[in-house]
Amino acid sequence: MKGAFYQGNKRFSVGEVRPQPPGLGQVRLKVAYSGICGTDYHVYLGHMDQRIKTPQVIGHEMSGEVAEVGEGVEGYKVGDKVVVRPLDPCRKCPACELEHYNICPDLNFIGIDSPGSFQGSWTVPAHTLHHLPDTIDMRQAAMIEPIAVAAHDVRLGLVTRKDYVVVLGAGPIGMLEALLAKIKGARVLVSEINQFRVNLARELGMEVVNPREIDLPKYVEEQTGTAAADAVFEVTGAPDAAEMMTKLVRTRGRIVIVGIFAEPVKVDLRQIQWREISVFGVRNYGPEDFEAAISLVTAKALPLDRLISDIRPLEQVQATFEEIERGANFMKVLLKCSE
Amino acid sequence: MKGAFYQGNKRFSVGEVRPQPPGLGQVRLKVAYSGICGTDYHVYLGHMDQRIKTPQVIGHEMSGEVAEVGEGVEGYKVGDKVVVRPLDPCRKCPACELEHYNICPDLNFIGIDSPGSFQGSWTVPAHTLHHLPDTIDMRQAAMIEPIAVAAHDVRLGLVTRKDYVVVLGAGPIGMLEALLAKIKGARVLVSEINQFRVNLARELGMEVVNPREIDLPKYVEEQTGTAAADAVFEVTGAPDAAEMMTKLVRTRGRIVIVGIFAEPVKVDLRQIQWREISVFGVRNYGPEDFEAAISLVTAKALPLDRLISDIRPLEQVQATFEEIERGANFMKVLLKCSE
Repeated sequence: MKGAFYQGNKRFSVGEVRPQPPGLGQVRLKVAYSGICGTDYHVYLGHMDQRIKTPQVIGHEMSGEVAEVGEGVEGYKVGDKVVVRPLDPCRKCPACELEHYNICPDLNFIGIDSPGSFQGSWTVPAHTLHHLPDTIDMRQAAMIEPIAVAAHDVRLGLVTRKDYVVVLGAGPIGMLEALLAKIKGARVLVSEINQFRVNLARELGMEVVNPREIDLPKYVEEQTGTAAADAVFEVTGAPDAAEMMTKLVRTRGRIVIVGIFAEPVKVDLRQIQWREISVFGVRNYGPEDFEAAISLVTAKALPLDRLISDIRPLEQVQATFEEIERGANFMKVLLKCSE
Repeated sequence: MKGAFYQGNKRFSVGEVRPQPPGLGQVRLKVAYSGICGTDYHVYLGHMDQRIKTPQVIGHEMSGEVAEVGEGVEGYKVGDKVVVRPLDPCRKCPACELEHYNICPDLNFIGIDSPGSFQGSWTVPAHTLHHLPDTIDMRQAAMIEPIAVAAHDVRLGLVTRKDYVVVLGAGPIGMLEALLAKIKGARVLVSEINQFRVNLARELGMEVVNPREIDLPKYVEEQTGTAAADAVFEVTGAPDAAEMMTKLVRTRGRIVIVGIFAEPVKVDLRQIQWREISVFGVRNYGPEDFEAAISLVTAKALPLDRLISDIRPLEQVQATFEEIERGANFMKVLLKCSE
């Protein structure tokens, strides 16, 4: 079995991994495919070096099957198709006491804080697993983790079929949020500046505008008969989007903060107070979001083949991250982790 | 009957007002007492000159009784004790369609956008009225409007008896929010820098700290066993409080934005996203908040005599605003508007 080891300094090495026998409560998986997440790219850039013990296999968006079952594990057998919800919370902090496992401050995010899925053989706690139906396409199943992110965000953003939703930023997560909001029956407007993403979103039937080409608040006002958007998803982490978001949302509307802001940014709290806007921070997912994502993939409800830009052998990991750094027109790239 | 007319340039004149006969759906009131709100002080400072048609009677925190009933008004008779909920929304905009009358963009806030209660005789739409019990103390009843503000904020902030609540800023609204959160059974910490307010809050049984004297986030962490606050009420409108608020609140905690921010300020959206914090803007009140406030005053549940710093004749309006400007140690001053 091969594994892709992050070495630091934008370098990966690919080498043999020794299958790690599953301990008590663990399962060893044969990983089929692993998607490259924006977080993995941040790792590559060195932004998360204090959390990584190099050389380390990273990666956490995956599909696979059970290869070996450890002691004390019930409900799984060799050959079962599964995905991993890569959260191993401490279960004793105040957040965990409130069952906010997804935002535990001492969270072991598997694939960052401990070894990940860019390898053919991966040993994980059984409590992280979700069953997949046998008929599922394993390439599409590698998209379940990011779909679960989007499902979580749309759920906490309280999106309904009555909503006019604006999504700021159509990377993989923003695009999936837009698609899920549409499935909920909402009218969705996508705001994006990258032409590749604009084109892809349009091909997928989205209404897309470039906020550098039009007056976005005015456009939203016109489209909603002056009401403005019911919900805005901020998925860019960009300071100008943080200034924009309060201009797009109606009285008592919702702003969902998905993007990661490197530092504090200016926000118009006056507008938030004056129009009783709610702002919801969102991160990771719960088990119900994974189940929702599995149902969507099983039902073929999403154009995943259009979102998967390419599938590469694990050996091309270095070249692929370098292409991403050069601004390649990718939505999601999968690494094939085993035969 | 006398009235206090704002003339612009920090000047009030006191003169005779001619009672205005109530039209269709209106009621003329004899005003007993009117409180001076922070908003009235902003009017005095000239901050709201574009909304005021000088010379204009301002004021909106009041108690009074029905003096004359217009055509088409049911449920009120001469002599009934009442308070006014000073909101006259347009009832046709998108916000009003969603029944968000308190944040209608075309809201006529009576006492700012139209004549107010700093006068002995005041004619208002009957739909703004709430009945008071005959036994109520009319000085205390003049506090119902700000209590309704606090009741609204504590309601939208979802405060429960399980909460640890931090209130940033103990002016009249912050102090009332702290008192109402305590009545809900929450543990409350007040943060305030003004020594008069610190002392008064302590006299009223509050736990109070000065954030310039202690490390407030560290204190809250210690007090909550590292969990941090369930809810933070930002009632200062100060940029440093906007930076502080995200440091005080727990995972999935709530921040309630009550303070009015003159311009966009830096907010740590990264913390909001990372810990799934919710931020709720709050403004004005609904009928249910007035009913809650009336019940609290009727039940003598609040130390209102300690919050009412002084009661002055209407003729002293100019001197009183000048005292406020000089930093007088007032919590709430009432103007006596009729004999």
